[in-house]
Amino acid sequence: MSTIRPAADLEADPRVKAVFDDIRATRKSDFINNMWLYLAFDPALLESTWQEVKAVMATPSTLDPLVKEMLYIAVSVTNGCSYCVHSHTAAAKTKGMSPAQHAELLAIISLAGKTNQLATALQLPVDATFDADRN
Amino acid sequence: MSTIRPAADLEADPRVKAVFDDIRATRKSDFINNMWLYLAFDPALLESTWQEVKAVMATPSTLDPLVKEMLYIAVSVTNGCSYCVHSHTAAAKTKGMSPAQHAELLAIISLAGKTNQLATALQLPVDATFDADRN
Amino acid sequence: MSTIRPAADLEADPRVKAVFDDIRATRKSDFINNMWLYLAFDPALLESTWQEVKAVMATPSTLDPLVKEMLYIAVSVTNGCSYCVHSHTAAAKTKGMSPAQHAELLAIISLAGKTNQLATALQLPVDATFDADRN
Amino acid sequence: MSTIRPAADLEADPRVKAVFDDIRATRKSDFINNMWLYLAFDPALLESTWQEVKAVMATPSTLDPLVKEMLYIAVSVTNGCSYCVHSHTAAAKTKGMSPAQHAELLAIISLAGKTNQLATALQLPVDATFDADRN
Amino acid sequence: MSTIRPAADLEADPRVKAVFDDIRATRKSDFINNMWLYLAFDPALLESTWQEVKAVMATPSTLDPLVKEMLYIAVSVTNGCSYCVHSHTAAAKTKGMSPAQHAELLAIISLAGKTNQLATALQLPVDATFDADRN
Amino acid sequence: MSTIRPAADLEADPRVKAVFDDIRATRKSDFINNMWLYLAFDPALLESTWQEVKAVMATPSTLDPLVKEMLYIAVSVTNGCSYCVHSHTAAAKTKGMSPAQHAELLAIISLAGKTNQLATALQLPVDATFDADRN
Repeated sequence: MSTIRPAADLEADPRVKAVFDDIRATRKSDFINNMWLYLAFDPALLESTWQEVKAVMATPSTLDPLVKEMLYIAVSVTNGCSYCVHSHTAAAKTKGMSPAQHAELLAIISLAGKTNQLATALQLPVDATFDADRN
Repeated sequence: MSTIRPAADLEADPRVKAVFDDIRATRKSDFINNMWLYLAFDPALLESTWQEVKAVMATPSTLDPLVKEMLYIAVSVTNGCSYCVHSHTAAAKTKGMSPAQHAELLAIISLAGKTNQLATALQLPVDATFDADRN
Repeated sequence: MSTIRPAADLEADPRVKAVFDDIRATRKSDFINNMWLYLAFDPALLESTWQEVKAVMATPSTLDPLVKEMLYIAVSVTNGCSYCVHSHTAAAKTKGMSPAQHAELLAIISLAGKTNQLATALQLPVDATFDADRN
Repeated sequence: MSTIRPAADLEADPRVKAVFDDIRATRKSDFINNMWLYLAFDPALLESTWQEVKAVMATPSTLDPLVKEMLYIAVSVTNGCSYCVHSHTAAAKTKGMSPAQHAELLAIISLAGKTNQLATALQLPVDATFDADRN
Repeated sequence: MSTIRPAADLEADPRVKAVFDDIRATRKSDFINNMWLYLAFDPALLESTWQEVKAVMATPSTLDPLVKEMLYIAVSVTNGCSYCVHSHTAAAKTKGMSPAQHAELLAIISLAGKTNQLATALQLPVDATFDADRN
Repeated sequence: MSTIRPAADLEADPRVKAVFDDIRATRKSDFINNMWLYLAFDPALLESTWQEVKAVMATPSTLDPLVKEMLYIAVSVTNGCSYCVHSHTAAAKTKGMSPAQHAELLAIISLAGKTNQLATALQLPVDATFDADRN
């Protein structure tokens, strides 16, 4: 079930085809996952979203590619985005996440979920030392 | 403002003092932040929470200490927990997070917030290849 | 899958039948969607919920009916409510949402998801000029 | 800071005065908290919101008044609504919540926050026995 | 669909078997739900999670067992955790939740969802009287 | 309080100055709000964020500028982003949102918050007719 229906021949649109070709080249794989197949209903949204994902996630940077996927999982789990949890967990495994690392990731994000609730329930005042504006 | 008021002499309770001493020893610092000062209203809750935070966050493991803090920030931002964003950002800086890494962390968690919205708005079907049960 | 099971003959209850009749009359359609079929397990909750939905969403007001549906989608996506995203996207299409408007809606709510994360991660102080109490 | 500014003499409006009088009578207290002072910018919204809060929270029912406040706190903490956490924690204390019960409430809602993260991260299939439609 | 695949013979691991045996003994039932079957991929995470759930949820305390389940449901609904809503609603029914109580639970948590939105949209200042630090 | 401290002379950086100049020109105002002052710690993040906000929010499109701001408010309220609720409510007022429209916006997003909770608590099956893939 979804809220839009992808066209029968998505790549008949040259803008869509160009993005899909770049996804395949960047990932060195023929597989195009549903995120892109469904976003293709609006070529401009497809283009801008892919450009940003490519720039942030597929470009060498100060953080390790596996760490980036774990951060993506952390946000996606907290937002309860089922599709995103699946796709980024699969990506993290492809990038080498071991079962022990996966378990540790779960331990951290579930502990954060727990202490977030405690801090909010207590309505903790922020310690002055944490304020970057004063340091 | 908070929802409980810490007692005047928290460490008069030996259970509280034992936890605070362990926090100081573990962190090699005299500073006790508000999370622990306020949780001390219930020594059992203080003990169990600290034991878990210490086990998950302050014990050598498969993930780098800075990565752990970044994951904690990712969850805390997504949950909108102001206190937690402050305390874990401060901790990440103490563990060496550079401005460039901070900016990259923000780029990733904000992009994840964006694509989570897209995937949920589209109600994307999960690609069969992402299902661990089948692989 | 659901957490309650609708009775076999819901409309045998006159309070349920009265609400369903009003839904049909208001919408000029025989179709009753699952929200109402399942809420019918408690006629009082069914009545009060429908009365509020009718008053807010199906009564002429200062906002356009399509705009109202888009606002409903924005909240539902952010809350990750799958049923609600489906039902209100279908309703928006019935009220004339074009593919271009749908794409723009997605661009806005996903950008908001992104900048919400940035503002929370930065823990931005609110500009004094935004405070209605002072203006 | 707020997004609207209450009028100087709110009770000059008879609809506002009627609601405020009912709040005072229902709660047997002269104190009107900010929720109602600020909602008064729109008398219709003030009326409908107060009627619902009164019906659900201040009318004898199948659940204990203190339990109701605890449920309200649980939702408010999870939504990160600072005002609501404060007001309903204060209300729960007025209704007799002991420090031990407060601590247990925090233990439950923080554990739920933790296991919610685990279930979502694992994308657990729902056990067939939990499906009310089949039972 | 899930993000990990349980091993064929989970109880071949003595740590897993010990936890499963304790779950069966505590609940006086042979049924082990998916939360535990899937968490078993990491015996340490399984052990610590079960110990905490048992301590908080299955130990006599200041709150009634049914109230605890309702609080769990309130958090799980707000977080949008489908699995958790199902499992804790089933548990609440087993502990005696009547349809009338179920309906009232829904009325409270949906009203809280509503007023949380109002308070956040208005950015209400917290009334000074709600501040525990000052009282 | 914030998690980064803006530099003393932000516009000494030509990339920052160029973005600020474009913000001033686009908005026809000298005022730069804190979102941009704080994002300036990373010029690349500042540039990409502003370009996207400008393209989505400040370019003529299929949706009315006030409607766009209302959608932004809806997401920001649901995410509990205090800064964003303030800044976009102020922007909506600048674009002509009347008190009656503001009240109606609040009625819709709070009703959506309420029915989202009901749909999630009931775990409603999605009606087949809502599935775009089948239509």
